[in-house]
Amino acid sequence: MTTSAIADALRLPAGPVDLTTIDTDAAPGFDGSKSDGRAALLAMGEELADLQERLWAQRTVGAERRVLLVLKGMDTSGKGGVLRHTIGLVDPQGVRITSFKAPTEEERAHDFLWRIERGLPSAGFIGVFDRSHYEDVLIARVRGLAEPDEIERRYGAINDFEARLAGEGVSIVKCMLHISADEQRERLAERLANPAKHWKYNPGDLDERAHWPAYRAAYETVLERTSTQVAPWHVVPSDKKWFRNLAVGQLLLDTLRGLDLQWPAADFDVAAEQQRLAQEAPVQ
Amino acid sequence: MTTSAIADALRLPAGPVDLTTIDTDAAPGFDGSKSDGRAALLAMGEELADLQERLWAQRTVGAERRVLLVLKGMDTSGKGGVLRHTIGLVDPQGVRITSFKAPTEEERAHDFLWRIERGLPSAGFIGVFDRSHYEDVLIARVRGLAEPDEIERRYGAINDFEARLAGEGVSIVKCMLHISADEQRERLAERLANPAKHWKYNPGDLDERAHWPAYRAAYETVLERTSTQVAPWHVVPSDKKWFRNLAVGQLLLDTLRGLDLQWPAADFDVAAEQQRLAQEAPVQ
Repeated sequence: MTTSAIADALRLPAGPVDLTTIDTDAAPGFDGSKSDGRAALLAMGEELADLQERLWAQRTVGAERRVLLVLKGMDTSGKGGVLRHTIGLVDPQGVRITSFKAPTEEERAHDFLWRIERGLPSAGFIGVFDRSHYEDVLIARVRGLAEPDEIERRYGAINDFEARLAGEGVSIVKCMLHISADEQRERLAERLANPAKHWKYNPGDLDERAHWPAYRAAYETVLERTSTQVAPWHVVPSDKKWFRNLAVGQLLLDTLRGLDLQWPAADFDVAAEQQRLAQEAPVQ
Repeated sequence: MTTSAIADALRLPAGPVDLTTIDTDAAPGFDGSKSDGRAALLAMGEELADLQERLWAQRTVGAERRVLLVLKGMDTSGKGGVLRHTIGLVDPQGVRITSFKAPTEEERAHDFLWRIERGLPSAGFIGVFDRSHYEDVLIARVRGLAEPDEIERRYGAINDFEARLAGEGVSIVKCMLHISADEQRERLAERLANPAKHWKYNPGDLDERAHWPAYRAAYETVLERTSTQVAPWHVVPSDKKWFRNLAVGQLLLDTLRGLDLQWPAADFDVAAEQQRLAQEAPVQ
């Protein structure tokens, strides 16, 4: 599979990950300005929409293929912006966004992957996880919501789960939206300064922010332990919103291109149907 | 509630409906060309997106309001086009599209409204029904899938159901996409002529088309019996795709405007949070 310069630049090297060495404000693999980047994203729209329709059409002939985009990142890192600007480029009929909240009592009574399985996109869909099974090794670790042994077990369980999904025709694209603590402070300050954004702010956001170094360490472990051949992680520098949106779009486009999606052949006699239509009794 | 010229022009008069008297190729309430119409739709995008976000924000403070768009029409009338071009203007996070297929065994074991209830949008969402409870008085009547007495019962059941939904905060927008039989023939011929569209064609489409007059009569009864004050029907001339997309966009915009959606007030002390952020210990 040929990949883009952006995908090549975002590929994570094997081994330990030190997030402090990955520039949050960069635009790796893209040689252009903000307006170039925005134009490049819009220019992808037509091909993304075409490929998404082919994926959907394949569903009608029984193909199992689907795409799962997993978006992770600290508060304000821009999951919503990616959904609006990048996912918004494709036909909403073919998109399924699953937002996971704090687990319900029923969900807590099952293994952590139970609700994830139920939130998977069906064949033909581009599914997007806004929060995901990675909460269960991130906030769960930082906030001590599970024992260390259980957290440890989960990395392997996630890899097994994702390997099974890949075998079932799910193309998994995992993106960590990487912002700096300074950028987060600015974004929180903007929310506080704008009454139209107060609903997005929660005093708990500042409490979480105080755990920044612990979250960073938890992310580093996730990146090191769950970036696999079939479901690699991409660390997307996200201080520049336009680059973040473009990079996720490019990763999605690369993935869809790699599926070699053809229009399904007719399962009926085209000429015979054309003749039926030409010879039908008057309809009015 | 102030409505637009398009909404005024599409309002259905009380009493019997004769669909043959409603021009499928018109653009009522809009005085402009195809390119003007397309520009007018795109120009709505910003306001639609803003109002959708307010609707969503209201959800976070416990408001129950939601919008339900019901799209009906003969095959090829353009439900998919409306979803792509009109619904595609708003943030996909706030949209829930429910596609109803032929009922499953479990669904058939319940009243026809059981699965509809389960497909409703939650608070804050714009829900779209691609097929709906109206199948149960349209194809069910034309194909004799239910006894006449049962069909008769359903009109009242639908009105009661929609009145209850309206009382629960659901704004219902019902659109019948109205095309001519000639236009349908052209669209079917286009699908047959284009291998990229074969997957959209089914030989059964021509069998259904032979029942055109029976469908028209069934639609007329639906329009007469289920267009109510709280959930009126709009017959949208749909031979012109651009007008169809514009008209549904305008009806949605009118509906959202009518909800007087305000940004929720902060439920925390904004100045105190600003001070906390300014005085926090260094985070990195």
